[in-house]
Amino acid sequence: MTDAAGWRRPAHEGSDSPYRSAAPRSDDVPAYRTLTYEVDGRVARLTFNRPEQGNSITPDTPVELADAVERADLDPRVHVIVLSGRGKGFCGGYDLAASAEGLLDGQMTGATPREGTVLDPTVQMHNHDPAGTWDPMVDYAMMSRFTRGFASLLHADKPTVASIHGFCVAGGTDIALHCDQIVIAADAKIGYPPTRVWGVPSAGLWAHRLGDQRAKRLLLTGDTLTGREAVEWGLAIEAPEPEDLEERTEALVQRIAAMPLNQLMMVKLALNSALLAQGVQNSQMISTVFDGISRHTREGYAFQQRAAEAGFRQAVRERDGAPYDDGGPRTSNVTNQPTDRG
Amino acid sequence: MTDAAGWRRPAHEGSDSPYRSAAPRSDDVPAYRTLTYEVDGRVARLTFNRPEQGNSITPDTPVELADAVERADLDPRVHVIVLSGRGKGFCGGYDLAASAEGLLDGQMTGATPREGTVLDPTVQMHNHDPAGTWDPMVDYAMMSRFTRGFASLLHADKPTVASIHGFCVAGGTDIALHCDQIVIAADAKIGYPPTRVWGVPSAGLWAHRLGDQRAKRLLLTGDTLTGREAVEWGLAIEAPEPEDLEERTEALVQRIAAMPLNQLMMVKLALNSALLAQGVQNSQMISTVFDGISRHTREGYAFQQRAAEAGFRQAVRERDGAPYDDGGPRTSNVTNQPTDRG
Repeated sequence: MTDAAGWRRPAHEGSDSPYRSAAPRSDDVPAYRTLTYEVDGRVARLTFNRPEQGNSITPDTPVELADAVERADLDPRVHVIVLSGRGKGFCGGYDLAASAEGLLDGQMTGATPREGTVLDPTVQMHNHDPAGTWDPMVDYAMMSRFTRGFASLLHADKPTVASIHGFCVAGGTDIALHCDQIVIAADAKIGYPPTRVWGVPSAGLWAHRLGDQRAKRLLLTGDTLTGREAVEWGLAIEAPEPEDLEERTEALVQRIAAMPLNQLMMVKLALNSALLAQGVQNSQMISTVFDGISRHTREGYAFQQRAAEAGFRQAVRERDGAPYDDGGPRTSNVTNQPTDRG
Repeated sequence: MTDAAGWRRPAHEGSDSPYRSAAPRSDDVPAYRTLTYEVDGRVARLTFNRPEQGNSITPDTPVELADAVERADLDPRVHVIVLSGRGKGFCGGYDLAASAEGLLDGQMTGATPREGTVLDPTVQMHNHDPAGTWDPMVDYAMMSRFTRGFASLLHADKPTVASIHGFCVAGGTDIALHCDQIVIAADAKIGYPPTRVWGVPSAGLWAHRLGDQRAKRLLLTGDTLTGREAVEWGLAIEAPEPEDLEERTEALVQRIAAMPLNQLMMVKLALNSALLAQGVQNSQMISTVFDGISRHTREGYAFQQRAAEAGFRQAVRERDGAPYDDGGPRTSNVTNQPTDRG
């Protein structure tokens, strides 16, 4: 027995623990290319680790994220999984600077061969020619595997918490919105500007997270929220000042971690049951198909063409110019729009 | 150009194919322990290969099945995936002879470490003691990973067809019901007798496949159907005589294989959208929890105790004795019950 109440004991301690005769788990972790993995007491910390690239998403990201989540999910010491990012922000979305400029390289890691499949960048490049037909299912087969990897956060047995600073935009939200809880710095920027051109949020979670009115307010404009606004709208649970983000995240995480594993799992399964009954799977499927379409419309090709000529940053600046005027770190002042009713 | 109509060309052939510059795919396939994998024209053939054990399910099965399905799904040559079994039948269910007799060994293969986790058989054994508490979430975490592996058949981009001969019972149905089409020999036996004791079908698909009345007719009795009855009830699409099973399966598969890949994917996604909207995910979750409970009730422990003492075959004989009298290859005469109305 320990000093703590019996129900606070680690799941793997005690002569009546189901884990009692198992060998201590190895702490060997694969050398991930997109994130670091650390077990710290009852908390598994997954940290995006491409700070120079704004932690942008590469083909490795969904595979490594799903692997790390499953690793934490299976480790009986871990009660809760925290996802954050190193550098200036959480995640700036897909590595579009590379893909929109036609510099696709690398391919999804994993056990099965990728060469010559939809996960081979040359296959996607050939499927991306405005002078020829394109096959939406070749795009879907590729993009749906990104979504499937990100969805590991929602389907993990254990609770997942995103701690967001700086920015979480575009594809970054396809990851963060899969987390059970979001803690976000008050001044952080969150949203999906690519609905303006060349994107539909493939994770399909906005309506489920925000409700119909508010989700449409964001996606019919590509507008973004501050962390403070995200909490007002119920997208996140807390929006501390940036300097307090780590401490506030930690306070929440430690309260979760003190609960028994089985209590956490049952609560998450019961609440997910209500969420999934809303049709999340279908939203994700159709959103992923539409995301592919948006990259192959006349407008989508025009955006890509502009990015290839002027550079991706410039094309994005133009995308977020008037009437939006919310490029870079600026957000859209969604919750405090002046009205012309005076 | 080939002689065939343009839309019949292989996806990877032609100067306008997105796969045109990809290197020929390697045909190296991992040495699976539970099944063989073969690509034959446009058909990927997955064949359970433990004939001496009735192709019973081991911890390797879901991992290898999901890997093989993903391999076929990514191979642009493959249009359809066919699943069958070698030996006397398709699949006799979980390897309960081992587990009910307390002889659990082996553990799920895969990249992440299994030792000391819920996938470690010693952990499950410690969680299985009628003299102590048991943790349903330790059971769920393990069993849900089996279901997740089997569900790869339903969530694959490409159509999956089960070709069933002999028997498909208990856990075997958790696999087969995930296939998009079932072709079954007229004399084969299909059903889930373990609802009589020590089991609830964790895949949770019976109501979705059969409708409420017929699903309850089977699961409230543990009764089984012949292949012929399965077709009458809409559970399978065709029930040829056993000697014609291979030929009839092949005829269906070749008609599917002649369709363009993108047509097949869109049709499957559209029809799955209706199926998944019925709440398949929730059915699977609660069924998996209940399956675990059923193995830890007073009755479940009594069954296991009997199996440990008298052997699993004898315990099953008793389970399927009066008033059921449908042990071994016998089925339950479900669709032609004599009525006392004369």
